[in-house]
Amino acid sequence: MESLFYGLSFLTVAIAFAFAAYLYLWVKKQRTVNKRIMEVSLLIKEGANTFMRREYRVLAKFALVAAVLILVLLPSPIWQGEPLDNVSMAVAYLAGTILSAIAGKIGILVATLSNGRTAEAAQKGIKPAFLIGFRGGAVMGLLVVGCSLFGVAAVLWITGDSSILLGFSFGASSLALFAKAGGGIFTKTADVSADLTGKVELGIAEDDPRNPAVIADNVGDNVGDVAGMGADLFDSNVAAMTSALVIAQSLAGDGTANVAMVFCYAILGLLASIIGIATARVGKNGNPTRALNSSTYVTTAIFLVLTAGATALIEGFSWRIWGASTVGLLVGVIIGITTDYFTDDTKPIVRKVAHASGSGPAFTVLSGVSYGFISALPAMVGIAISALVAYKLCEPMGDGYAVFGISMAAVGMLSIVGMIISNDAYGPIVDNARGLAEMGGLGEETIRTADELDSAGNTVKAVTKGFSIGAAGLTVISLLGAFMSEANAALAAAGKPLITGFDIMSPTVFFGVLIGAAIPAVFSAMLILGVDKNAQRMVAEIHRQFQSIPGLKEGKEDAKPEYGKCIDIATSGALRELIPAGLMTIVVTLIVGFIGGPSAIGGFLLGNIVSGLLLALFMSNAGGLWDNSKKYVESGEEGGKGSEAHKAAVIGDTVGDPFKDTAGPSINTQITVVSLVASLMSSIFVLFSIF
Amino acid sequence: MESLFYGLSFLTVAIAFAFAAYLYLWVKKQRTVNKRIMEVSLLIKEGANTFMRREYRVLAKFALVAAVLILVLLPSPIWQGEPLDNVSMAVAYLAGTILSAIAGKIGILVATLSNGRTAEAAQKGIKPAFLIGFRGGAVMGLLVVGCSLFGVAAVLWITGDSSILLGFSFGASSLALFAKAGGGIFTKTADVSADLTGKVELGIAEDDPRNPAVIADNVGDNVGDVAGMGADLFDSNVAAMTSALVIAQSLAGDGTANVAMVFCYAILGLLASIIGIATARVGKNGNPTRALNSSTYVTTAIFLVLTAGATALIEGFSWRIWGASTVGLLVGVIIGITTDYFTDDTKPIVRKVAHASGSGPAFTVLSGVSYGFISALPAMVGIAISALVAYKLCEPMGDGYAVFGISMAAVGMLSIVGMIISNDAYGPIVDNARGLAEMGGLGEETIRTADELDSAGNTVKAVTKGFSIGAAGLTVISLLGAFMSEANAALAAAGKPLITGFDIMSPTVFFGVLIGAAIPAVFSAMLILGVDKNAQRMVAEIHRQFQSIPGLKEGKEDAKPEYGKCIDIATSGALRELIPAGLMTIVVTLIVGFIGGPSAIGGFLLGNIVSGLLLALFMSNAGGLWDNSKKYVESGEEGGKGSEAHKAAVIGDTVGDPFKDTAGPSINTQITVVSLVASLMSSIFVLFSIF
Repeated sequence: MESLFYGLSFLTVAIAFAFAAYLYLWVKKQRTVNKRIMEVSLLIKEGANTFMRREYRVLAKFALVAAVLILVLLPSPIWQGEPLDNVSMAVAYLAGTILSAIAGKIGILVATLSNGRTAEAAQKGIKPAFLIGFRGGAVMGLLVVGCSLFGVAAVLWITGDSSILLGFSFGASSLALFAKAGGGIFTKTADVSADLTGKVELGIAEDDPRNPAVIADNVGDNVGDVAGMGADLFDSNVAAMTSALVIAQSLAGDGTANVAMVFCYAILGLLASIIGIATARVGKNGNPTRALNSSTYVTTAIFLVLTAGATALIEGFSWRIWGASTVGLLVGVIIGITTDYFTDDTKPIVRKVAHASGSGPAFTVLSGVSYGFISALPAMVGIAISALVAYKLCEPMGDGYAVFGISMAAVGMLSIVGMIISNDAYGPIVDNARGLAEMGGLGEETIRTADELDSAGNTVKAVTKGFSIGAAGLTVISLLGAFMSEANAALAAAGKPLITGFDIMSPTVFFGVLIGAAIPAVFSAMLILGVDKNAQRMVAEIHRQFQSIPGLKEGKEDAKPEYGKCIDIATSGALRELIPAGLMTIVVTLIVGFIGGPSAIGGFLLGNIVSGLLLALFMSNAGGLWDNSKKYVESGEEGGKGSEAHKAAVIGDTVGDPFKDTAGPSINTQITVVSLVASLMSSIFVLFSIF
Repeated sequence: MESLFYGLSFLTVAIAFAFAAYLYLWVKKQRTVNKRIMEVSLLIKEGANTFMRREYRVLAKFALVAAVLILVLLPSPIWQGEPLDNVSMAVAYLAGTILSAIAGKIGILVATLSNGRTAEAAQKGIKPAFLIGFRGGAVMGLLVVGCSLFGVAAVLWITGDSSILLGFSFGASSLALFAKAGGGIFTKTADVSADLTGKVELGIAEDDPRNPAVIADNVGDNVGDVAGMGADLFDSNVAAMTSALVIAQSLAGDGTANVAMVFCYAILGLLASIIGIATARVGKNGNPTRALNSSTYVTTAIFLVLTAGATALIEGFSWRIWGASTVGLLVGVIIGITTDYFTDDTKPIVRKVAHASGSGPAFTVLSGVSYGFISALPAMVGIAISALVAYKLCEPMGDGYAVFGISMAAVGMLSIVGMIISNDAYGPIVDNARGLAEMGGLGEETIRTADELDSAGNTVKAVTKGFSIGAAGLTVISLLGAFMSEANAALAAAGKPLITGFDIMSPTVFFGVLIGAAIPAVFSAMLILGVDKNAQRMVAEIHRQFQSIPGLKEGKEDAKPEYGKCIDIATSGALRELIPAGLMTIVVTLIVGFIGGPSAIGGFLLGNIVSGLLLALFMSNAGGLWDNSKKYVESGEEGGKGSEAHKAAVIGDTVGDPFKDTAGPSINTQITVVSLVASLMSSIFVLFSIF
């Protein structure tokens, strides 16, 4: 049965790629006539490409070093094990990094193609503009999911060994960690600096072309929100499938059916996303938020029906597993809805924070931090319940099935990831389009249309972030199971007693828990400080330009800002800051492993997951909350633009920017990377730890 | 041997009380002549007493309800077990609340006696003023430690049953939870409102008597930092001794020696503190920070020598246990020193945040949050290492000794708590004195002296906070062990299989971990929102007074602000907000226990400890960091008072105020309360849980 599903996987991937190519050509044939837009759009494209090229050059070096280390050490030291396994692992690792990089690169290509066309289409109304923005994003969604399914199926088909998949997944994750961190630092450096110098100091509009940081800001949307987010979800999707497959292969009984089931769910999720994407439309004067959300729900429903059908028809597929995956998906939707409650400006929380801003920025920050903390509770409870239910549902199927159930809950939650990436990538495209409409002088009416499209992107982002954090949570829980089975294989080989679990009363486990819990906090802090330092550099450069370029402030025709300098500062700063934080997490994992061995690592992973989820939810939601509170005040409430409340709300938004777009979403990846490092290194820890 | 140590405990307590009485009388006989100071000092005293009376009235109702529930249900339902045990437990619970309340009450008495006298002595220089402030604080320190040793010894001497001690400890903790939260909300409501309306809006000095909130602010220092902190450390000290005694009684072998050792260490700690207090002096123009710190180090050294002597001389005392307690104490000192690194304005971090303030308040907040996160790492590592070392040191002594070692590390860390409370209570006394010097018109020179004393209080506070958070961490780890032994007793009685540990791969444990981790975040958020709401009410009242009282803003002789109204708002707001947050944590603990039973509670405690430690460290340190950055800017750096950097630094300080004085230090107590509720309810959870 397995080979059938390999074939079907490749076929579905081919369909997804073909559909993506069709959408790409459709976007490309949309007309552009506005000279200024084409010019600026080209600047954005060049800026993004330059950054990506320089970033990939740095990451290529890192990947090569890592590949050599893997070749020597993993899955077991080359002088002890089967050298061919080490070669496979290193090649799989490189394949993971390369596929991730390709997905990011093509995402940038189509996003920078769509932004100008969306802006021009906005002159004709919401309907045509929405379609270009959404389809541009969909190309990215289809490619990412296609690449991940292709990669996982190919690696397993060629090697037949799911532990090699861990190498592939680690390749995807390590690239995602740096791409997300680098892109996140770039985009927030530019965003924060542009806002502070433009909006706050000079009182000019967000995308005013006089601001030297305005192009860097638009480039940032692409490299952070398109490429970074794509790498992140590529990684999550690969990790979820990998952990499910590692556990499926280790199960007693008909392992073949379980492996087939993982692929079957992935295939059906991709098909459901294709249908959801193909049918997404917005009415003539309709609501783009509703269009995006309803296509998500349509995809969810189609997926549930298709998988129920498959479970009914195919022998060996279990309803219990279907139940686990359904619980995962539904909890994902619920997390999305509660996130929405805390970040939507039609709901009370955003309004309370906007109201608190009237008493000064300290109250904006305090209330945002507080509601951000509270917002983590429902998601944590949701993840806790889905893990408990999935476990209890699948436990009666036999040894190991309980953890397999949790991993299938994660696969379920991520099944509609194609749709989610499409929605997510739509955001930066329409954000760019709004800027281009302003810089191209397309008039008030068009800017308003673009604004509406942009605001839908922001709202939907909250929902998709909830999904990706929840999925990361479930994935790493199942990776904990994968780690235990890897560690036990190594312990058995070394003739040591096996691990039956990680007891929190054991001092080494506890030691690991405390240190693991501190890591996401330190990791976030390093990224935020990176943005902080970098933005201070860029603000200084903008001040310099306003002082030394005559006529720039006044907006004289021939006074051109030096956009390139700002792009350069954001790029070099991001490249300098992205490595230390990522490397720190990997190094600490190794230290804990070499001190405390597998049991300390078990605790370390738990502490890391728990505090990582808490901080990721807190930061993403608080950031979204502040952003929308500011927009709410700007819409004329609590005194409107220029009021004291507005100034306070802008400060809240600036604090929230690196929370929600740099640190928060990078924590996901950080957790996954740490889990994969632990699984990959388990045999080494068994051989060389102190305790 | 046990009865000998009961006798010695009572004797030492008597010595401590006699010494406290001597210091009290010494402070009382210092002269006061300034009419204005006596008048304001009386206002502060009355405000504090009114608040304490109203707070205790609310808490008395809560305590009575809790006592009735305990009478019916604990240690086992009254219809099942021995009714006399239930009566003992309920009485012990009430004794815990009453002793805690008395300690708080007397602390307020002596603090409000010392503040004016310190202010007047400051006219003669640092030396006499320091001594009054320090000895006033020392009365509180001696009383708190004396009461806790007396209570623990009395309960165990009378009942002989350490599980009744859990009831006593819960009484102390539940009162501390509310006293800390209520006092914390009161003090920060007043502080934040006074700063925002006075410093920021009007640009008048911190303690300008025109500000209607200025007396409330000084009252807050007493009810938050004296009474609240006293209740907190009373609770920590009782909890540490209780968990050590519960485990000591459950140990195989010579249990008597172990129980005796716990009391011996407590006695020697109190004696060492008495010596440290008696010898504390500052040179004529010496440095008060150095005086405070060096008396801490002297106390530490004396304690180590005394306990080493006892271990050498007394049969049955083990060097391994001595080692565990020494490790605890030394790690406490190390945590204090690293905390100091992040919050002292002669070190780089405070200066970096001050420098970031030059780019605007968003950067103040972002850099403070980041360094706050990073500052948690060394303390977490310290706690992890001390737990690991204490465990490994004592493991060879036999079954159960490993966890006993951890509990003795906590006892060691808290051994010098008398000294720590003295230093801590010194802070609000000299803070008040500074205000009184300003309001009493004692001149620039005296205010500068008072300022220097105040700044020493702030710096030392960081060190003592590190101690108390670290000790809470170790205490609750050992309470986890106490919980397991209580749960196993209940399981054995119910004929169910015993727990051998809490495996994080078990879904109920994991379920507990995730929810437990979210609780400190929600708890903090509720307290911060309480301050936020309350401060908004008070700011509105201050604005009303400035508008409706003619001549107040201008400082006319006969224009008196209505101080009482502000005190009233702070009081009633604090009383309204303090119950929900505390009750929430208890209720969630019960829900998790009834759903998942003992194993979910084990996970819940772990999650709660880990995220609680992380957030408590983060909030306390970030708050201290912002406070001192503001002071650094005010000293003339980065533009000095009135600059943009100063405005930004004030906003950072306002954000940090409820972090460091409301939420952060309450989390300690929250963790302890949850652990004690869990231990007390273990038999009920065993009988009535779903899973």
